[in-house]
Amino acid sequence: MAYTPPSLADVQCAAERIAPYANRTPVLTSSSINKMVRANLYFKCENFQKVGAFKFRGACNAVFSLSIEEAAKGVATHSSGNHGAALALAGSLRNIPVHVVMPNNALNIKKDAVAGYGAEITYCEPTLDARESNLNKILDSTGAIMIHPYNDERIIAGQGTAALELLEEYPKLEVVMTPIGGGGLMSGTCIAAKGINSKIIVVGTEPKGADDAYQSLNKGEIVPQTDPQTMADGLLTSLGVKTFPIIKEHVQEIITVSEENIVKAMKLLWDELNIVIEPSSAVVLGALFEDPYKMKGKKVGMILSGGNADLENLPW
Amino acid sequence: MAYTPPSLADVQCAAERIAPYANRTPVLTSSSINKMVRANLYFKCENFQKVGAFKFRGACNAVFSLSIEEAAKGVATHSSGNHGAALALAGSLRNIPVHVVMPNNALNIKKDAVAGYGAEITYCEPTLDARESNLNKILDSTGAIMIHPYNDERIIAGQGTAALELLEEYPKLEVVMTPIGGGGLMSGTCIAAKGINSKIIVVGTEPKGADDAYQSLNKGEIVPQTDPQTMADGLLTSLGVKTFPIIKEHVQEIITVSEENIVKAMKLLWDELNIVIEPSSAVVLGALFEDPYKMKGKKVGMILSGGNADLENLPW
Repeated sequence: MAYTPPSLADVQCAAERIAPYANRTPVLTSSSINKMVRANLYFKCENFQKVGAFKFRGACNAVFSLSIEEAAKGVATHSSGNHGAALALAGSLRNIPVHVVMPNNALNIKKDAVAGYGAEITYCEPTLDARESNLNKILDSTGAIMIHPYNDERIIAGQGTAALELLEEYPKLEVVMTPIGGGGLMSGTCIAAKGINSKIIVVGTEPKGADDAYQSLNKGEIVPQTDPQTMADGLLTSLGVKTFPIIKEHVQEIITVSEENIVKAMKLLWDELNIVIEPSSAVVLGALFEDPYKMKGKKVGMILSGGNADLENLPW
Repeated sequence: MAYTPPSLADVQCAAERIAPYANRTPVLTSSSINKMVRANLYFKCENFQKVGAFKFRGACNAVFSLSIEEAAKGVATHSSGNHGAALALAGSLRNIPVHVVMPNNALNIKKDAVAGYGAEITYCEPTLDARESNLNKILDSTGAIMIHPYNDERIIAGQGTAALELLEEYPKLEVVMTPIGGGGLMSGTCIAAKGINSKIIVVGTEPKGADDAYQSLNKGEIVPQTDPQTMADGLLTSLGVKTFPIIKEHVQEIITVSEENIVKAMKLLWDELNIVIEPSSAVVLGALFEDPYKMKGKKVGMILSGGNADLENLPW
């Protein structure tokens, strides 16, 4: 069956649906960074979103999209981090059961976050097999609705609301850039940005050490991510069959970024904007250090995906 | 001659005067910090102000208060840091000469900031004598207007605009807390908060290792700060004759904070709010760790003074 991706209308519905729960995050600018890259950059700060990451948008849209009957059965996912916390919070706001399968080697801070929002955690071996088989058991026994972290239309539409807000505030943007992990943020951004203005250029960014989206776009089919090597721990996953077709249609280019430029961008954003962002967020600005004047003279929106950095282990 | 402190009307005028140039900074909250201290805290984030600190408010108000004749002669100050940068930026926005006397041991990042805004810097030995004599020479030769970092009604009124904005947004606050250095922010906050609602409790906070304001309030007269020992490098100065009377009249209490609690508060604010703030800003939240449930059940506004932290030398 042909897949129909979400539309701009779906993103707009998602924005209305999550408005009572999600933060409308601020957009920050820095004249000194603008001077460095000779462009006007507008940073959409999802590090100030609930649970510290854009992931709450999609999870919240998914949970509040459910019918009363579906919702009563609860939701379930497997996650080592932000998606689990986002789903746990969204579920607690709707007061429904949330089941999260987590690998037993997940960071304590992530386990605590998911538990803190009242989700029921099932720990398993840190393999995809173990995660999926444990999740399947839960789905079978509870009838809970599976909410995938990115390969889901409701998630994609929800993630698109960040770009929607950004373009409402700055309608003259010529370029919008995001990081790419599984492609939920990137594909939602495509739908929102191209839906609002078909002339906007949408650019993806990913670490050179986890360049599966770059390879997938070149090859025209999904190239799975194997053995990723990067500090950007939010960008390790492969694209999904529901995110890749959207990316393939709308993304003009994917820029791959060295670890050195990720660190440089991360530190610069902390220093100049006085915000805490995680390495995965820094990839978008890092992309301009690969080719500093690439966006010369342009108005560029950049989505900073989250702020869950480890303050005890900074990469500089 | 009796000293007449600025009034709420002066703060309101300052707010109008600086509105075209200063950022209206966001107010952030954290449900997990609120749970820890069993109060509702509202953080006014002056780390997102121009030059990364509330200091821009006062400097901007002072510079744009000048008559055309005064302004033509330029402005001058001595400063090792944020006030110099704030005055330099404000002067550049009015396109007038700015002279800043800086100790030759000032941090390069501070020197670069002041120079970057186009101010003329005179370096001198790092003593108060050398700073004042060099400044006096400049005042004599140029006729520039001296803008003191805090002992100045225009500065005090300007700093009060942060509390004014905070109370416009959250009129039901019962307590407002700020750090105290020279007392510019604290006294401006008193005037704004008490002027809006005389029942609001205003609380000052300072490091135990630089507790001159605490001692001054106890003794009823200015006790100069000698040999301060704290990482909160914005809070090393003594109160001024124009800030102390306001503080004496309006501040209910000054809480002194250990270095340990300053670090704990700083890290918690970075972790939970995903913002970069400097140690001087963390003192306000640190004050609650001295006596965790002191504000139990209350709505408390806290002004986070700035974000110029040294990312290479974090105190944890």
